[in-house]
Parts: sequence; structure tokens; C-alpha cells
Amino acid sequence: MGTGRLEAFSDGVMAVAITLLVLDLHASPEAGSSLAHQLVSEWPSFAAYAVSFFIIGIIWVNHHALMALVARVDRVLLFVNLVLLLFVTTIPFTTSTLAAYLREGGADARVAVVLYGISMEGMAVSFTVILAHLVRGQLMHEPVDPATGRRAVRRFGLGTLVYPLIVLVGLVSAPLMLLLYAVLAGFYVVEQTPILGRVDRG
Amino acid sequence: MGTGRLEAFSDGVMAVAITLLVLDLHASPEAGSSLAHQLVSEWPSFAAYAVSFFIIGIIWVNHHALMALVARVDRVLLFVNLVLLLFVTTIPFTTSTLAAYLREGGADARVAVVLYGISMEGMAVSFTVILAHLVRGQLMHEPVDPATGRRAVRRFGLGTLVYPLIVLVGLVSAPLMLLLYAVLAGFYVVEQTPILGRVDRG
Amino acid sequence: MGTGRLEAFSDGVMAVAITLLVLDLHASPEAGSSLAHQLVSEWPSFAAYAVSFFIIGIIWVNHHALMALVARVDRVLLFVNLVLLLFVTTIPFTTSTLAAYLREGGADARVAVVLYGISMEGMAVSFTVILAHLVRGQLMHEPVDPATGRRAVRRFGLGTLVYPLIVLVGLVSAPLMLLLYAVLAGFYVVEQTPILGRVDRG
Amino acid sequence: MGTGRLEAFSDGVMAVAITLLVLDLHASPEAGSSLAHQLVSEWPSFAAYAVSFFIIGIIWVNHHALMALVARVDRVLLFVNLVLLLFVTTIPFTTSTLAAYLREGGADARVAVVLYGISMEGMAVSFTVILAHLVRGQLMHEPVDPATGRRAVRRFGLGTLVYPLIVLVGLVSAPLMLLLYAVLAGFYVVEQTPILGRVDRG
Repeated sequence: MGTGRLEAFSDGVMAVAITLLVLDLHASPEAGSSLAHQLVSEWPSFAAYAVSFFIIGIIWVNHHALMALVARVDRVLLFVNLVLLLFVTTIPFTTSTLAAYLREGGADARVAVVLYGISMEGMAVSFTVILAHLVRGQLMHEPVDPATGRRAVRRFGLGTLVYPLIVLVGLVSAPLMLLLYAVLAGFYVVEQTPILGRVDRG
Repeated sequence: MGTGRLEAFSDGVMAVAITLLVLDLHASPEAGSSLAHQLVSEWPSFAAYAVSFFIIGIIWVNHHALMALVARVDRVLLFVNLVLLLFVTTIPFTTSTLAAYLREGGADARVAVVLYGISMEGMAVSFTVILAHLVRGQLMHEPVDPATGRRAVRRFGLGTLVYPLIVLVGLVSAPLMLLLYAVLAGFYVVEQTPILGRVDRG
Repeated sequence: MGTGRLEAFSDGVMAVAITLLVLDLHASPEAGSSLAHQLVSEWPSFAAYAVSFFIIGIIWVNHHALMALVARVDRVLLFVNLVLLLFVTTIPFTTSTLAAYLREGGADARVAVVLYGISMEGMAVSFTVILAHLVRGQLMHEPVDPATGRRAVRRFGLGTLVYPLIVLVGLVSAPLMLLLYAVLAGFYVVEQTPILGRVDRG
Repeated sequence: MGTGRLEAFSDGVMAVAITLLVLDLHASPEAGSSLAHQLVSEWPSFAAYAVSFFIIGIIWVNHHALMALVARVDRVLLFVNLVLLLFVTTIPFTTSTLAAYLREGGADARVAVVLYGISMEGMAVSFTVILAHLVRGQLMHEPVDPATGRRAVRRFGLGTLVYPLIVLVGLVSAPLMLLLYAVLAGFYVVEQTPILGRVDRG
């Protein structure tokens, strides 16, 4: 099995997940307040919508950068990819929960922050496991020497440490956390480091 | 990264967004009035459904006409394309809001009109930025001389002026705005000007 | 523009529409009756689900049989294809409305029957217009002599007469109509006549 | 008609179905209890979500393994594939019903268990019918001798006996059934037997 199929299915799942985010936006004449007021007071939904949209968008970009390295697909890769997609498809749920509790503050908001963080952490860990499996199983087009592979996995795995830190910030202020995620998403957009890029060029 | 992936993902997102529009159509025995009456009084939903359906359809057609010019994809293109998709996926939300408030009139209807206009304007601006980036970054299959490129961007950018004008009309009459969008969509269906077509053939 | 893109987008829309049908199936502990009772009394939803599922499935099969004939895509084809997809995406709505009113009987059930028939008729007319446009515009891989083309369009167009007849039956009995649609869908599954097949071989 | 189209459409349907599972996860400030409490008491939804996600994922993997054998697509294959997809798209419904009634116990939980089992059994039977049709109709790339074909169908068909057994367990304990499905899904992930593999190598 080549990567074509795996990518087509993953693309489909991510395209549906990113579009389902919109189902959390709503306004209704039955709400008992003016539309303008509803839109203003629903700002956490709009902010969470935009941030999660770009996060899934960046997951999609990174997924393809990673799959472009892959020469053959084995059962483990299929399985870990499913785990990755499982966490990606939870994002519409954890996003709408975060938006619903963001302004409440208190224990509920902190639980919503941790829940959102679990989506992110699960995604980051899955990515790292995929890369580690590609390196260890020599599933890539070009052989990678062990040291370069380990360095790439370690660098990639750093993301798995960043997300818990952002959650810690979120426990103090959920809106600030959302802002940090937006900044992180922006960073990944401009970040150009190739996954297996020479780190020893110095 | 070639455009294949970018187009497949964008196709997926637009296919889901255009189909999610149907979730705003509903009728129910619990509504307390006859089905015929419900369908008649829900005419704004049907009208908005049809108009938004063709608008997303035309966005899809234009997206491919634009991507057919692209030789290579860079990070900026990926990012602006995500911004375009972000606005496209808001259309089911802004459409259902417009349909819900269309007959109410007053301030709420005007807010709904502006909200719908934001989806359209965001989409039109994203398209123009994509074309401008393609021209400036020389990402296209065939080199374009700067004058032709600038003219194409300017002509394309005219759409970004049309949408605010339609919103102004909508502030007076929301149904008239919907009619104008339908006419505009019909215009784009028959419009044959190639994006980078010779404008100096006279 | 080749048909690849057109087919990929149409596939996506039909795949989403066919899957959204499931959103009309539901059962809940809050409904106040046993699950078994809910499932039995929801039989119209299950019947309508299965019939509409196969109808969209057959639309998909026919769509590809038709697109396989096409050599080049023009603006009219793009537009009529969008009209076809518009009617296909209404099927989840008209299906759930039919299921909701099927057992009610009376005027409401008859309106629901007509509404469902509009989805079907719009789809059948769109298909016939597409074929007629392909024949008239010579957009197909192999040239078709006018007489064969006209015969094919006429034979294809017969479907547009069958659906109103089924609606007439539905005005008397909505469940019988659903059965007729199921039979019709079964007929199309086994029907092997090629779209432009020799009808003059006698 | 090659398998490309069939696979693309099936991929689309399965990608949407697997992502729609997330619509059953929800938490709301209006629920009247803390978010933490809601999440804990919704554990059946999360468990059912994960199990059904991997089941659809494995259906997708098996679908491709099966389609990779196919040289040409006939009407029967198209039809049985639609039946398979029909059962796959019911999974979001039978999953949410199972999750809703899992903790209730009693007759309702047993009905929900049987309903879930019907999705699984319909899927397993469809797969077996597809394989039997491929073998009988000689639709595969490489001719298969009748004995090998029959053995493969029989081995594949064993799955249709496993699901009713799991349902029997579910009648005693629905959570235990979910656990068994998870184990079965895990088994299929590591299972490497090729569909038409030599069974006579001993």
C-alpha cells in the first residue's frame, strides 16, 4: 500500500473536521437578545473557531510534509495515523467546549482548557510517534543515519512539551491560552525547517 | 509541494461546506403549523440556500482556474489559501443567520446582512491576495510581465469593491441583496475572461 | 478544464450528502418510550434512509457513466452540474421531511411527497439537460450522429416523466411511493443499457 | 469503470462517517452539572467514540486491501459496495444510541446492543459477499483457483459469526461488549494474513 490512499483518507477526515467547526457558530432570533449582542458575546466561539481552523490547517500541512518522506506504509503506520486522526476529529468537540466555558472562568473553564490541551497533546504525540516509527522502521525514501533521525525525532518531540506548557498558562487565563495557540499556529506557518534537515551544517 | 494536494484538500473543504448548507433547511410536525405553511414562510432559507450554493460553487470554479496557473506552492500561498477556506466555511453560518433574520427587518436584519457580506468580502480579498502573491512571487507556470500581472490583480480586486456595494443595498433591503448576489453569481457563470487574459489586444 | 476536477468535487458533495442522511436517525432515553418502541415507530425514517441512500448511490453511478463520455468541460456544463448537485444536496432535507410526515397522512403528507418528488425531478431534469448539452455541444470523446444523440436524450428524458407519476401514487399512499422508489432504484442497479448504446441494431 | 472512482467515493463516505462520530460528544454549561462531572458521566460516549472510530478505520483498511485485488467493477460489485457503505454510515447512529443507553441497563440497553451489532453484522456480511462475488465472477487481477477462493471466502466469512457472539456477550454486559470490540479492532490492526494468502503452505 502506497501513501496515496492514506493521504486521501486523511485529507478527507481533516477536511470534514475543519469544516464541522462551523457548526459551533450560531445565532437565532429565539435567543432573546439582538443579533449584534449575540455576536459580540459569542466572541469566544469566533476566536476558538479561527484558532482551531488554523491548527487543523497546519496539522494538514505537516501531515503532508511527513507523508512525502514515506516510501511504504505498514500496519503500525496505519494504526498510529488513525490515532492521529482520532485526536484531530475531537478538535470540533474540544473547541466548542472551550468556547462554551471560556468566559465562565473557575473550575469548568480550567477543565475545558485541559480538554482542549488533550486534543493538541494527543496530536503532537501521534506525530512524534509516526516520525520515530518512520526513522526506526526505515520506511522512508532515503535512508537516514541514526543520529540525524534521532535528532529529528527529538526536535519534533519538543512540540509535545510546548502544549502542556500552554495548558498551564490556560489554567490562569483561557483567553491568553487561545492567543498563545494563535501565535504558535502563526509560527508554524512561517517555520521552514525541513523535518530531516541538516542540523549539523554549523 | 505541488498544487494537487492543496486542491484536493480545498475541494474537500468546499464540498463539505456546500453540503452543510442543507442543515439549515428543516420542517417538523412539532412546529405547530402545516407543512405547506412552514415551507412558504421558510422561503428566505430556500433562497439563501440556493444563492450560497451557487456562490460556493463559483468559488470552487475560480479556485481551480487560479490553481491551474500555479507551478509551485509556498508557505504564504498555503496560509492565504487557509484564510480563503476559513471564510468559505463560515458561509453556512452567515447564510443561516441571514435566512433567520431576513424577514425580521430592522437592526438585526442589517447586522445579518453585514455578517453575510463579511464572508463574501473575506473570500474576495483572499482571492486577490492569492493572485497578487502568485504574480509577485513568480509562482506561475509562465512568467507574467509586471504590467499584465498588475492589471490582472487590479481587475480581480474589483470584486472586493462590489461586495461592500451589495451590502449597502442590503442595508435597505435584504431580499434585494440576495437577488443581487444571485445575479452576480449568474454573471460569473457566463463570464469567460481568463484571469491573465490579454487586456491589451485592442 | 478536464472532468477530473469536476468529478472529484461532485464525488465529494455526493459522499457528504449520502452520509448526512444518517443525521435523521435518532433515538434517545429522553423520548419517554422504550428504545424498541422508538425504533419500530421510526420505521419511516429507516425506510426513507435506505431508499434515499440507494438513490444517491445510483445518481453517483450514473454521474460517472455520463462524465466518462465527456472530453471537455465548458461553463454551461459546470453550471448545470451545480444545479444537479443542488438538488442532490436537498435530498437529506426532503428525505427527513418525508419521514417525519409519512405516517401523519392528510395534506401534510401529500406536501412532503411532492417536496421529495421535486428533489427527484430536479435531479432527473438536470441529468437530461447535461446529456442534451453534451450532444448539442459535441463535448464528447466520440462524435455522435444527431439521430443517435436525440434518441439517447429522449430515452434519458423518460425518467423525468416517471418521477411525477410516482408522486401521483404518493398522493394516494406515501409508503407505496417509497416502495416504488426502491423498486426503481433496484431497476437502475441491474439496468445495463449504455447511455449512447446502439438502438438501431434491429 | 476501474476501481479508482469506487474507492474515491467509498473513501469520501467513510471519511465523513468517521468524522460525524464526533457530533455525539457534547458538554454544555446548560447541563446543570460541572463540566468535569459531565465528562466523567459521558464516558460511554467517549468509549463508544474511540471503538467505532477504530472499527471504521479498520473497515477502510480492509476495503482497500480488497479493492487492490479487483481488476474490473461490475454492477453487482457497485451495488454490494453501496450496501456495505449503507451499514458503515449507520455506525454514527448506532454508536450514539449505544452510548446513550449503555449505562441504563435493562431491555433498552440490550436493544441498543443488538442495534449496534446489526451495523457490524451488515458490514461483515457485505464484505464476505463482495469477496465471494470477486471470486465467483473472476473480477480479480490474478485468477484464483476455486479451492483457494472458497477457503478465502470461508475464512473471511468467519467474521460474520464473531459479531453475533459479541452481541450475545453484550446482552449480559454492554461495556464488556465494547471492550471485546476494542480487542477485535486491535487484533485486526496487527493481523497480517493476506486475503488470498496461501493457506496450504503447511
